[in-house]
Amino acid sequence: MTLIPELQRILGADAVLTDPGDLDGFTEDWRGRYKGPAACVLRPASTEQVAQAVRCAQAHGAPILPQGGNTSLCGGAVPDATGAPPVIINLARMRAIRALDPVNNTIVVEAGCMLANVQQAAADAGRLYPVSLGAEGSCQIGGTIATNAGGTGVLRYGSTRDNVLGLEVVLPDGAVWDGLYTLRKNNTGYDLKHLFIGSEGTLGLITAAALKLHPLPDTHAVAWVGLQSPQAAIDVLGLVQRACGARLSAFEMINALQLDLVRAHIPGRRSPLSSEPAWHVLIELADNGEPEGLNALLQETLAQAADLIEDAVLAASEAQRAAMWEIRHSVSEANKKAGVGLTTDCAVPISAVSAFIAQADAAVRRVVPDMPSIVVAHLGDGNVHFIPFLEFADWERLADRDEMARRIRHAVNDVAHSLGGTFSAEHGIGRTLIGEMAHYKPPAELALMRAVKRAFDPDNLFNPGRLLPPAAPSS
Amino acid sequence: MTLIPELQRILGADAVLTDPGDLDGFTEDWRGRYKGPAACVLRPASTEQVAQAVRCAQAHGAPILPQGGNTSLCGGAVPDATGAPPVIINLARMRAIRALDPVNNTIVVEAGCMLANVQQAAADAGRLYPVSLGAEGSCQIGGTIATNAGGTGVLRYGSTRDNVLGLEVVLPDGAVWDGLYTLRKNNTGYDLKHLFIGSEGTLGLITAAALKLHPLPDTHAVAWVGLQSPQAAIDVLGLVQRACGARLSAFEMINALQLDLVRAHIPGRRSPLSSEPAWHVLIELADNGEPEGLNALLQETLAQAADLIEDAVLAASEAQRAAMWEIRHSVSEANKKAGVGLTTDCAVPISAVSAFIAQADAAVRRVVPDMPSIVVAHLGDGNVHFIPFLEFADWERLADRDEMARRIRHAVNDVAHSLGGTFSAEHGIGRTLIGEMAHYKPPAELALMRAVKRAFDPDNLFNPGRLLPPAAPSS
Repeated sequence: MTLIPELQRILGADAVLTDPGDLDGFTEDWRGRYKGPAACVLRPASTEQVAQAVRCAQAHGAPILPQGGNTSLCGGAVPDATGAPPVIINLARMRAIRALDPVNNTIVVEAGCMLANVQQAAADAGRLYPVSLGAEGSCQIGGTIATNAGGTGVLRYGSTRDNVLGLEVVLPDGAVWDGLYTLRKNNTGYDLKHLFIGSEGTLGLITAAALKLHPLPDTHAVAWVGLQSPQAAIDVLGLVQRACGARLSAFEMINALQLDLVRAHIPGRRSPLSSEPAWHVLIELADNGEPEGLNALLQETLAQAADLIEDAVLAASEAQRAAMWEIRHSVSEANKKAGVGLTTDCAVPISAVSAFIAQADAAVRRVVPDMPSIVVAHLGDGNVHFIPFLEFADWERLADRDEMARRIRHAVNDVAHSLGGTFSAEHGIGRTLIGEMAHYKPPAELALMRAVKRAFDPDNLFNPGRLLPPAAPSS
Repeated sequence: MTLIPELQRILGADAVLTDPGDLDGFTEDWRGRYKGPAACVLRPASTEQVAQAVRCAQAHGAPILPQGGNTSLCGGAVPDATGAPPVIINLARMRAIRALDPVNNTIVVEAGCMLANVQQAAADAGRLYPVSLGAEGSCQIGGTIATNAGGTGVLRYGSTRDNVLGLEVVLPDGAVWDGLYTLRKNNTGYDLKHLFIGSEGTLGLITAAALKLHPLPDTHAVAWVGLQSPQAAIDVLGLVQRACGARLSAFEMINALQLDLVRAHIPGRRSPLSSEPAWHVLIELADNGEPEGLNALLQETLAQAADLIEDAVLAASEAQRAAMWEIRHSVSEANKKAGVGLTTDCAVPISAVSAFIAQADAAVRRVVPDMPSIVVAHLGDGNVHFIPFLEFADWERLADRDEMARRIRHAVNDVAHSLGGTFSAEHGIGRTLIGEMAHYKPPAELALMRAVKRAFDPDNLFNPGRLLPPAAPSS
């Protein structure tokens, strides 16, 4: 039997999409940058169906592309124009919440469950699932795990990796690993879940996960702070960490250009401050108990930082708090409307953030004189989205724009690398950053990764061409 | 050239121990339970020396046994009587603190640095390295990483795994992987450090590590609480988690038998309570700021739990707080003096702890009628050291004691397994738990671990016979 009829027999005909019109939503990424052909799109309803489909594709030598909500920023979840058209396995039908244990603070969910639905199920039980990011209303939990998604909750609760206790994975040979442990401590051999977390579908297909939940904070205090420099922001961060400890739940920084673009392009957004400082920080504390105490703590802490701060305002109501966060959440939409932003995703040691921003700015201007840059930083994590930016008309005047974009981003990544930093803090590699991966990663580290890949997926059928650069011909 | 002279040439003669008298401290574990011959003990002074020694041993086909402070509870760091005598590589001379960055909250240390020295270096900079355990004055940081050590800080700060940002590792082929990243976020391919953490020296030799530091709390509130049942303790835990959030830094439980043994065998230890409840819990909150507020919070929270609690007392001074912790820290010494305790190291979902303790007690009594058990639990992690116990004279009366001990422990582990738990929460596998590993681990998971082992150490020279059970002859 050929591949498609066999898959139809396993899954039922309506779970195997083959019509070109049906495939469009699955074969192109949401920003329209990547598109490639697929053999078909599978929509399995169970782990057992996934396992059978994998064994079938494996027997036919067909590449397999696991797909969640298709919100990758790196082209990691749509087909390539190169190689054989893959079998896309889309997890959207596997969205059950299998178990929630409020005493153990754990939830077990299927991979196709939307991130926002996991958050909601936790909140309904008085608990917090702390991973939070722009795409939470469309991305799937399996995708966030396969890419170790970051977001605004990392400072206090860690990345997705830090909130996964166990996984169920269909392996490249079609076996199912039931590793859905719900334990805080389990020291029994190699911690395999950490290999699959962040593996971008290249080692197997995550079908379910056991996740950590946390107490749901019921009190928040938020301040918007204006500063003269990133170094001042870092000094304030240190002060807040010492004074507020684990209450600190967000420390986000943007520059004046970013705030201006939000004000110009998103109706209703205005600066919380009456002055016009060069740098802006949103600080959030979260706790349980009465808000007065938390607001007072934040106010006292900022008073200690008076000589570092140009201007500051505390949110006096839930509405003001929401308005401050809305500025932060509007940056992607504003930048898309305003022009062409060459997003990067670097992280450096926090002590090097100020040097990074200054040197990256200089490096960009060496490529394109007078090119300004947007800065959007999860400062508490050392993660700076440094975004060289031009308005559409100015961008169109440049020659050889694709190569120019590559050179500009690479110049920024070079600065991060020279400061002990990384070129991908939270977005992953996908296909966009394969070249940087080959350039920056130590050969010994790439060799180990390739050894893992060969051990798990000897036929290189799982998401080939993503995450790992091809080995040099000599090796 | 034969192995020993070649190693002497690489390291210098005084760094290669071969005299039987010199080897004793390295070839026997600290409890005197395991001993085996070694080809020699190496005491390298640098990563490059380790790499050269590994290449040399590799070329001679000699097994390599990485060794830290030799405080393993599972015989993981001393030779076997089986197989070729290994080259022991002891890291004690590599104990430098390479860098401490208080702004980035990171420290980079060599593997031979004692855990207590890492804690002290952090404290000197006003920071906390939160891993804390009984052996901290003799165990080495490299060993804590290779075994993913737990301890009393896990509830708030996670296990060792959660506090490692980067590693430097000498690989089985003698290559050095410099993965000493000091970044909070780094999404660039497979997260290899997590494979080495907890690998017990079977995949390579950790020579240095980059570790997370945390703000140093300056205020603590501690209570000693008496309860009628483990379930009451779990209910109090939930209440404290909701009311105190991230301030909760310890929730340790012991039973009355354990307290009695400490009082009987360690001079100066007395119960903080005047009553004699069946179960005892030590609760600690940690924060920054004034102690009054934290003590009041703990008192109010316990008042809310009045109907769950039999008796409770708050530490009114630093001395009282220390006295409460001293009870907890005296349990190993007391139990060693009191008789024979068959320590186990299970973790179960917190919601299953009460059932676990009741069922484990019944299971032990089915093997040895009337055998009582000590309970020492990191309750906040679901980690219960359930310790069937007899006084020396009663133990000596049993026949076939080794087999009896195995059966008793296995009965306890069976109960944990049936409740979704694990037979090794924090001690690791070593050689002691190889049989349980083969018994409880899903075949798919063992197969993946073996694939990793083959990929990294194809000649099976790194700590052979530890962690991974031999494959069944058929596979």
